[in-house]
Amino acid sequence: MQTLTVGLAERSYPIHIGADILTRAELLLPHLPQQQAVVVTNTTVAPLYLETLRNTVQTHGIKIIPIILPDGEEYKNTEILGQIYDALLHQHCERKTPLIALGGGVIGDITGYAAATYLRGVPFIQIPTTLLAQVDSSVGGKTGINHPLGKNMIGAFYQPQAVITDSATLNTLPDRELRAGIAEVIKYGLIRDPEFFVWLEQNITKLLARDIAALDYAIRRSCENKADVVAADEREGAAGIRALLNLGHTFGHAIENGMGYGVWLHGEAVAAGTILAAQLSSRLGLLNQTDVERIRNIFKLAGLPITAPNLGVEKYLQLMGLDKKVEGGKIHFVLLKSIGHACINKNVPDEMLRQTLMEHTAHA
Amino acid sequence: MQTLTVGLAERSYPIHIGADILTRAELLLPHLPQQQAVVVTNTTVAPLYLETLRNTVQTHGIKIIPIILPDGEEYKNTEILGQIYDALLHQHCERKTPLIALGGGVIGDITGYAAATYLRGVPFIQIPTTLLAQVDSSVGGKTGINHPLGKNMIGAFYQPQAVITDSATLNTLPDRELRAGIAEVIKYGLIRDPEFFVWLEQNITKLLARDIAALDYAIRRSCENKADVVAADEREGAAGIRALLNLGHTFGHAIENGMGYGVWLHGEAVAAGTILAAQLSSRLGLLNQTDVERIRNIFKLAGLPITAPNLGVEKYLQLMGLDKKVEGGKIHFVLLKSIGHACINKNVPDEMLRQTLMEHTAHA
Repeated sequence: MQTLTVGLAERSYPIHIGADILTRAELLLPHLPQQQAVVVTNTTVAPLYLETLRNTVQTHGIKIIPIILPDGEEYKNTEILGQIYDALLHQHCERKTPLIALGGGVIGDITGYAAATYLRGVPFIQIPTTLLAQVDSSVGGKTGINHPLGKNMIGAFYQPQAVITDSATLNTLPDRELRAGIAEVIKYGLIRDPEFFVWLEQNITKLLARDIAALDYAIRRSCENKADVVAADEREGAAGIRALLNLGHTFGHAIENGMGYGVWLHGEAVAAGTILAAQLSSRLGLLNQTDVERIRNIFKLAGLPITAPNLGVEKYLQLMGLDKKVEGGKIHFVLLKSIGHACINKNVPDEMLRQTLMEHTAHA
Repeated sequence: MQTLTVGLAERSYPIHIGADILTRAELLLPHLPQQQAVVVTNTTVAPLYLETLRNTVQTHGIKIIPIILPDGEEYKNTEILGQIYDALLHQHCERKTPLIALGGGVIGDITGYAAATYLRGVPFIQIPTTLLAQVDSSVGGKTGINHPLGKNMIGAFYQPQAVITDSATLNTLPDRELRAGIAEVIKYGLIRDPEFFVWLEQNITKLLARDIAALDYAIRRSCENKADVVAADEREGAAGIRALLNLGHTFGHAIENGMGYGVWLHGEAVAAGTILAAQLSSRLGLLNQTDVERIRNIFKLAGLPITAPNLGVEKYLQLMGLDKKVEGGKIHFVLLKSIGHACINKNVPDEMLRQTLMEHTAHA
């Protein structure tokens, strides 16, 4: 097992990474001050890991209260959030009763938001069971739910007390979700870690074959990158450091929303969105065509979609205009100067954006 | 005009207090970075003060987007919150678009919570127009909404950028609401400011007659007390300093919920709840009977209810068990040792609580 730290002064917390660490009670117990703890999970993950988790803490006298949600991005909404609140109140959960998120990004986001807002904040622990959650969404404190008009529009910055990443849970992850997680791994290489990008080009087949050493390395290096960024800019401040993590996400959120939540996986939308961001970077003269091709190629090798769907240019613009990274009506784009170096551009000419969308999305 | 500061390091903010300061653009402009700002208000306050506020900022090129809610505690719920989010998204409000709460405690709480959670947090300004909001709820960053199972169960700590208290707005406040606000003013005297309590005993008739100098003094002294407490314990931490502000509130929340939100005003429920807390303190041998009588007397002089309604003992216990200040199933009570000195008691014997409720609530 390896342990990293997200350095946020009094809100610092550990990320433990290793195979089969879900059975290690000593990682959880310091964060369970009561004889009960709530586990929020979904109908897919509960049959796989809820009993393991229950056994881990039960021998120490801690009772698990499970809240089992339907599985899918389309349930990350205000109605399901309301069901969590109802369950917490009916079970008399208190300010010191921890909420444990056991599952992927959707479970982590909605559970974290419930923890941030129930009784104005209760303790929160992340146990991510998808690659995407392990390398990205479980770290850094972004929590929230979707609104019919946009993804993650309602939320809070709320840090967990610990992240426990059992990489053996990836053994049960469907191929499609493994690939979706790799999209976010590639992102770290692209925005700030060119050596890691080269490693990924050489090792992508190992990751797809679920080589445990390769996966552990990719998870650790991704978390190191994420922890550095979050420590430097916790709340996506004016410095714009954290905003770089959203490479491909402005396009990606438009794809997810435009296709209907749950049709494209988040990582799939980010893959196609990142290629659009690379094309736009190239059109603006920032990125050379060789790098664009390397980027297309690695996503293709990972089995991810490399062409964004045909929503129509106007629909894309409308959906992107709803993005959180809009200021004075202008979208702030994360673009690439080279592989390993991202930047923010607040003044992308409308025409450049339209041309990129016209030429590089699928034709009807 | 007088200006106090709530000292919270990088989140410190000013409280401006004075008659007719709603027309002073220089107080607002530093907090309005965009050419638009949202004002959340209600159907009662909008006809009174929305135009004044609009005129104040319009001459400086700032457009007001009004969101006008129905008036009453019963609307501080998830449905109305959803309507605020919908309006913000439809108006393309961004991360730097400020939300201004213009109204009483309900408007301040729900607007603050919307500001805390929309796009994971946008700027927030309080313009309280009821005495209760001016002396209590607008200061300190508690925001939230009610749940059918309990008051303020969903919420966040989120500080405003400024509080602008125009005491002339009290001229349009109904008598009943003025009295309800006085309940929270009396609270500061009871928990930590015995001299202020004596001043209140001597000046309560001036406050009821809306003597502007007396009101300004009471608002300022209340805000000074609140600012001190919040600076010492922003998030109601283990030290229990901030929790003292909830004198009478555990009983009071049960009264509000049990009678149906909006039937008793919050301040009315706090008045009756504070007298119950005093009776319980006396029964536990903490407070002498002379002080109990002084407390009953000042609330009576203020025209506030001094007897809690007959909900039945079991209903009280059930509703109080839902309080946020419950730990390990035990309610943490704020009690009084003397006038001006409050304390927390985490082990009130059940029998003492039952007897207090049986003897001192109204008979059916």
